[in-house]
Amino acid sequence: MNSISMKLNADKLIMQALEEDITSEDITTNAVMRHPQQGEVQLLCKQDGVIAGLDVFKRVFELLDETTEVVFYVKDGDAVKKGDLLAVVKGDIRVLLSGERTALNYLQRMSGIATYTRSIADLLKGSKTKLLDTRKTTPNNRIFEKYAVKVGGGYNHRYNLSDGVLLKDNHIGAAGGVKEAVTMAKEYAPFVRKIEVEVENLDMVREAVEAGADIIMLDNMTPEMMKEAVRIIDGRAETECSGNVTLENVTRLTDIGVDYISSGALTHSAPILDVSLKNLHAV
Amino acid sequence: MNSISMKLNADKLIMQALEEDITSEDITTNAVMRHPQQGEVQLLCKQDGVIAGLDVFKRVFELLDETTEVVFYVKDGDAVKKGDLLAVVKGDIRVLLSGERTALNYLQRMSGIATYTRSIADLLKGSKTKLLDTRKTTPNNRIFEKYAVKVGGGYNHRYNLSDGVLLKDNHIGAAGGVKEAVTMAKEYAPFVRKIEVEVENLDMVREAVEAGADIIMLDNMTPEMMKEAVRIIDGRAETECSGNVTLENVTRLTDIGVDYISSGALTHSAPILDVSLKNLHAV
Amino acid sequence: MNSISMKLNADKLIMQALEEDITSEDITTNAVMRHPQQGEVQLLCKQDGVIAGLDVFKRVFELLDETTEVVFYVKDGDAVKKGDLLAVVKGDIRVLLSGERTALNYLQRMSGIATYTRSIADLLKGSKTKLLDTRKTTPNNRIFEKYAVKVGGGYNHRYNLSDGVLLKDNHIGAAGGVKEAVTMAKEYAPFVRKIEVEVENLDMVREAVEAGADIIMLDNMTPEMMKEAVRIIDGRAETECSGNVTLENVTRLTDIGVDYISSGALTHSAPILDVSLKNLHAV
Amino acid sequence: MNSISMKLNADKLIMQALEEDITSEDITTNAVMRHPQQGEVQLLCKQDGVIAGLDVFKRVFELLDETTEVVFYVKDGDAVKKGDLLAVVKGDIRVLLSGERTALNYLQRMSGIATYTRSIADLLKGSKTKLLDTRKTTPNNRIFEKYAVKVGGGYNHRYNLSDGVLLKDNHIGAAGGVKEAVTMAKEYAPFVRKIEVEVENLDMVREAVEAGADIIMLDNMTPEMMKEAVRIIDGRAETECSGNVTLENVTRLTDIGVDYISSGALTHSAPILDVSLKNLHAV
Amino acid sequence: MNSISMKLNADKLIMQALEEDITSEDITTNAVMRHPQQGEVQLLCKQDGVIAGLDVFKRVFELLDETTEVVFYVKDGDAVKKGDLLAVVKGDIRVLLSGERTALNYLQRMSGIATYTRSIADLLKGSKTKLLDTRKTTPNNRIFEKYAVKVGGGYNHRYNLSDGVLLKDNHIGAAGGVKEAVTMAKEYAPFVRKIEVEVENLDMVREAVEAGADIIMLDNMTPEMMKEAVRIIDGRAETECSGNVTLENVTRLTDIGVDYISSGALTHSAPILDVSLKNLHAV
Amino acid sequence: MNSISMKLNADKLIMQALEEDITSEDITTNAVMRHPQQGEVQLLCKQDGVIAGLDVFKRVFELLDETTEVVFYVKDGDAVKKGDLLAVVKGDIRVLLSGERTALNYLQRMSGIATYTRSIADLLKGSKTKLLDTRKTTPNNRIFEKYAVKVGGGYNHRYNLSDGVLLKDNHIGAAGGVKEAVTMAKEYAPFVRKIEVEVENLDMVREAVEAGADIIMLDNMTPEMMKEAVRIIDGRAETECSGNVTLENVTRLTDIGVDYISSGALTHSAPILDVSLKNLHAV
Repeated sequence: MNSISMKLNADKLIMQALEEDITSEDITTNAVMRHPQQGEVQLLCKQDGVIAGLDVFKRVFELLDETTEVVFYVKDGDAVKKGDLLAVVKGDIRVLLSGERTALNYLQRMSGIATYTRSIADLLKGSKTKLLDTRKTTPNNRIFEKYAVKVGGGYNHRYNLSDGVLLKDNHIGAAGGVKEAVTMAKEYAPFVRKIEVEVENLDMVREAVEAGADIIMLDNMTPEMMKEAVRIIDGRAETECSGNVTLENVTRLTDIGVDYISSGALTHSAPILDVSLKNLHAV
Repeated sequence: MNSISMKLNADKLIMQALEEDITSEDITTNAVMRHPQQGEVQLLCKQDGVIAGLDVFKRVFELLDETTEVVFYVKDGDAVKKGDLLAVVKGDIRVLLSGERTALNYLQRMSGIATYTRSIADLLKGSKTKLLDTRKTTPNNRIFEKYAVKVGGGYNHRYNLSDGVLLKDNHIGAAGGVKEAVTMAKEYAPFVRKIEVEVENLDMVREAVEAGADIIMLDNMTPEMMKEAVRIIDGRAETECSGNVTLENVTRLTDIGVDYISSGALTHSAPILDVSLKNLHAV
Repeated sequence: MNSISMKLNADKLIMQALEEDITSEDITTNAVMRHPQQGEVQLLCKQDGVIAGLDVFKRVFELLDETTEVVFYVKDGDAVKKGDLLAVVKGDIRVLLSGERTALNYLQRMSGIATYTRSIADLLKGSKTKLLDTRKTTPNNRIFEKYAVKVGGGYNHRYNLSDGVLLKDNHIGAAGGVKEAVTMAKEYAPFVRKIEVEVENLDMVREAVEAGADIIMLDNMTPEMMKEAVRIIDGRAETECSGNVTLENVTRLTDIGVDYISSGALTHSAPILDVSLKNLHAV
Repeated sequence: MNSISMKLNADKLIMQALEEDITSEDITTNAVMRHPQQGEVQLLCKQDGVIAGLDVFKRVFELLDETTEVVFYVKDGDAVKKGDLLAVVKGDIRVLLSGERTALNYLQRMSGIATYTRSIADLLKGSKTKLLDTRKTTPNNRIFEKYAVKVGGGYNHRYNLSDGVLLKDNHIGAAGGVKEAVTMAKEYAPFVRKIEVEVENLDMVREAVEAGADIIMLDNMTPEMMKEAVRIIDGRAETECSGNVTLENVTRLTDIGVDYISSGALTHSAPILDVSLKNLHAV
Repeated sequence: MNSISMKLNADKLIMQALEEDITSEDITTNAVMRHPQQGEVQLLCKQDGVIAGLDVFKRVFELLDETTEVVFYVKDGDAVKKGDLLAVVKGDIRVLLSGERTALNYLQRMSGIATYTRSIADLLKGSKTKLLDTRKTTPNNRIFEKYAVKVGGGYNHRYNLSDGVLLKDNHIGAAGGVKEAVTMAKEYAPFVRKIEVEVENLDMVREAVEAGADIIMLDNMTPEMMKEAVRIIDGRAETECSGNVTLENVTRLTDIGVDYISSGALTHSAPILDVSLKNLHAV
Repeated sequence: MNSISMKLNADKLIMQALEEDITSEDITTNAVMRHPQQGEVQLLCKQDGVIAGLDVFKRVFELLDETTEVVFYVKDGDAVKKGDLLAVVKGDIRVLLSGERTALNYLQRMSGIATYTRSIADLLKGSKTKLLDTRKTTPNNRIFEKYAVKVGGGYNHRYNLSDGVLLKDNHIGAAGGVKEAVTMAKEYAPFVRKIEVEVENLDMVREAVEAGADIIMLDNMTPEMMKEAVRIIDGRAETECSGNVTLENVTRLTDIGVDYISSGALTHSAPILDVSLKNLHAV
């Protein structure tokens, strides 16, 4: 993760997560360790997958004590296997103990997303289609989860409601039609942003193309209807296909020829990747 | 969710989640709807499960506009079925559109946790054993996730490092032994808190009981070893069993006779429950 | 200003501005008015211009006391004249006195920007060229200043570094050339965002078009060179012209045929519009 | 700027300004520069004026990366000329690119204020009259703007409503008269604060002097009336003259003999001073 | 307490105090009261004294639930006696229980300060001398404690380091002497602020008067020396006497003729006034 | 104080306290010291007592300037005597001057609490009874005050409403009786938390024991009644005695045989311990 985003956007979330876990003190650690003592602990992989979030893992300990050192044996995006030694963390044992859970909560979740994303992205290899995430992220974790999608080989859809235009049925209804909606969006936000329109049938597809939409999202269509839509659009707009896409059902979509497939499951339903801190000892 | 916790502990997280999704404005909505317009939208269930987080769902819209009204047809903890009408939200359509994703992100995740928790809790019915969560929650979402566990029929382990003593192997190592660790914890935090010790073999079980531990956590033991441990403890301490407990493997633990089984999967790997906002229209 | 952006993005800035002005109490007002007293005051225009920021003006008083009422006789974007009665504010006189300066500081600055923007936008009327703002805004005031540009008839360039790609000379240098930079940007951020490239000569113009840039910014070129650039681009990309554009020098650019002219002066050097609160009296 | 004020009062505003500009990441820079690379860039002056805010400029980069180094060739308050090399910034090129706009937004604005202030202050040289700023500052920028006024040779009026008493017409009305207002203020805030009264005619001048006001502000009076007021006051109170004072009209006030002239234009209408970062290159 | 200071300066401190006391939920109350229930409780006085902080007491409950009602039978500054009914609070019983401790912690402390202040102020009656507080307040409670001093009949010294000039021995040393320090202060902060100098002997008294100090603080002098100092100053500056002033020793200072006596004990060592919430019952 | 709690929980409170004292700048120091200058100052004890809060004292200066050095000659918990040299602080004299008051406000208050706590704890020596604090702490200072109690030889009761169950009369009333309340609490919070019940007579004592309460608080009973209660409980629950316990009246409770005595006076009415910074000089 870029060090500037870490400082500006991630640090305060990580700090807040630490404060969520320690509201007054770590009673257990303070009870048995009254004074600082240097130690080290190993980060071990307990499940095959793709690792993501190593910088965040490290940052948790640094925010507790800037002298903590972490030596990594892998980097974000690497395929890791059960039993692999991923890193060694050295520092005040109290810091290692008090930061452990928060550091792992981030790393496990981010690696789970990267692992799940790669498993789907691998199925799209050989096609022209790219895998996109959505805004179905865990509240106050979007910056970590969208990064993990990238690490896993996916691409990011808009970050939030402020940096992309996506006209859905309700927007189209409010505007009075696809054409009107596209026109209003171009007037309101003509610059730097592409206009995306969500369509549900082939008439809307035609209308969207003619209105000059930059991207057309084919929502909950059958594979056949999507193929026909792609034929109609014929390169005049980019195409995105969405609707409950998961590892289990994505292959039905690979030969449709859309530019992008988006999947909320990448961030809302990926199970974690199991990693753990083991063999802590004084040094 | 209790209204006081909502005000003191949840509101700022929800507000922050909304700010994560709208950093300057909802461009799409503002492009097509320049003025307020009253409307309503239905919250529909798209998957069978247990609903949790309705107050949080509602609060998202209230924080955007305090005049938004939500009428619920179910309550937290209810079993819901695909197709059920769960609620109707009435208010400024721009608020309904801009708050939709954040409201659903909370509700889907919390309901997913409640659903998964109940599926495991149901397997424990008839036994004396209660289901516990852990601290393996999503950063900055603990208050929502621990609440969802309760709604699903689970119980809460300690909230964080500040409100419970749990002596793990590293603490025991630092103290010099189980007995020493328990003694130090009792000296440091004698009041209102029970002392829990994590043990890995039967010698440690005996030592923990004799040292006066209030709760003994049997970590990653075989069912047979756990049964023996329960026999040794013989009611002199409460017992907790932990270690990668999931819906698939929990039944092997139901007849061991421990007081509690804890499962990180409740919060770190439950898939979401699919619910959605549909049929928005002006009123 | 949209009420959602006000709640999510503006309220805390306005509150912070009030706290900047009142760190413990308004000593003067508290010295002479120990108790609440209802009153009203007139918002008068003291200079011809375009008004912008009325909602922000009102919000200052509401944040101090939600029962304060403001009746407006104009709306954002209206041309106002010296002597016009713009609004009447009614409420606790202490609130009117303590909020006055902060409310006016916002309104004067936003109206100054709207006034200056309109004066330039008027000069572009009849041409195809639209007026854009930049990121040269006052720190922690961007949401107010970009809104004021819109009210004045301008359009918004990207909001910040996170929601638009603009490849400048240094980025091009780092990438190794215009083509490489565009390719890298398309790979990194393929979706929802247009790729803009800043060019300084005609070779770069050609390279940018061929690389598939969506927007080409002609930076600090002579009018003649820009005309040639527009001829070369020939509709294959949108065009933006920038470089110290002010009210005094904009007319030299109106017949070049670029799609957009951007001007930092809109937000960094517009003088305020003078408005003031007068005739406060008890009611 | 004093390092303590920087830490306590400025840092969080600067950080907030950076967050305003980078809500998730600097997409452009991240697209073309995936890894840190050391570089340096020159800060060049593009317009004659007075420089102010160099510490703030530097602090922007330090907050992104504490290892960034800035070597200055001028200091706050120096007269600078078009073409002057003001500083060299060395560090991770990504930091230089991502911090550039925010650093310049502060420096240009502060230098603009210092330049404009000095131009007026120079006209007061030789007289006993000092130039004061007002509370007409940009919201959430007061600490920077009041500092810039000092750098330009002006003096600071009260910082905010909490640290000075200034009885205006509405306060006097509420109190029941000048005498009553001064008496109430002396009773409420007798200590460490001088009592200033704003007067509009010579009767009020007399009344204010007799009531024991420490400072008398002559508001929107003609030069002749002000001279008479100064004669009446005769050293028994300090005198301040206010009312739309600008560079163009200040000379009419220089021989009146007031102690202070205050001008809102110093902070609300000074155009920026143009400076820019150029010649970035890897090192 | 003024409603504007409450909103701008006190609300966030009160909210923070509530969050200090409830980091996730009020377990006890939630265990026994799952649903809202209206009730009322009496605020009773358990010790004679002066009441202060009623608005803060009320605000605690309002911040938890804006519909809570508080009826007061006394007002800030009233002498109260053991057994007096001070107020009745009506609202959701869960709010009354969860807010009780925080509300009382504020009210008891503020009333304790008001009570102690009045006991000293009463001893100064008949003399010209006024009682001042200091900056020896509890961190993050200054706004409440300085208000309580006023309620008790004391006056406020400067609020903080930013709104008053007080040249102590170290400042004088840094400046090179009393005269130099006063001159530098007048040059740096000529406007709205009086210059106070702390002196320790009669030579410094003379020097301070001649340098034009507005206020002279006589620090840790004997009563005799102070009388001589007052004689030397002879009305040319205001006088303040300081140094471990308490209820027990203040009478030795009453006939010295200084304008002010300041006492840190008012805020750092006043015992609380005992008040309590009793007779809660459902309604 | 543990360095992790300092970073996570104390730093922001200390920073906030500094901001409370310096809202724009330390005018006095800035007036006489325009540039950094290294110096040192001594921390001297002016009253016999127990020192507590040295890390907090040091942290104040470090937060202003991380290069400030503090050498301590004592440690928290040491008995100190009038005249003792406690520490030497070295750094920029401006930092020493600007941080002095905040650093001392913390140290004096925390040492006052430790001193008062030890004086009572000493009276309990030889008995089995331990001294507990309460939640009657100063708002936003609990972390410092509870730590000071420990330093003085006391023990901490629950930290706040979220980490302990204490059923008081109103909870018991809401539940319908002691037995019902204990049952509900055990159902709601069965794990890691002991259930404490406050009782007022011997019938309630019996009921609480039988309901399985872990701790029984004897509230405002006579010593005789408490002895009888202890006899009834007979080791089946821990016992706490509370009710206006102070240094003056604690001895009447020492031979009752309760496990704990709690005293709100430790934190709400302990006078400060006088310490001061002296002999500042340049180095």
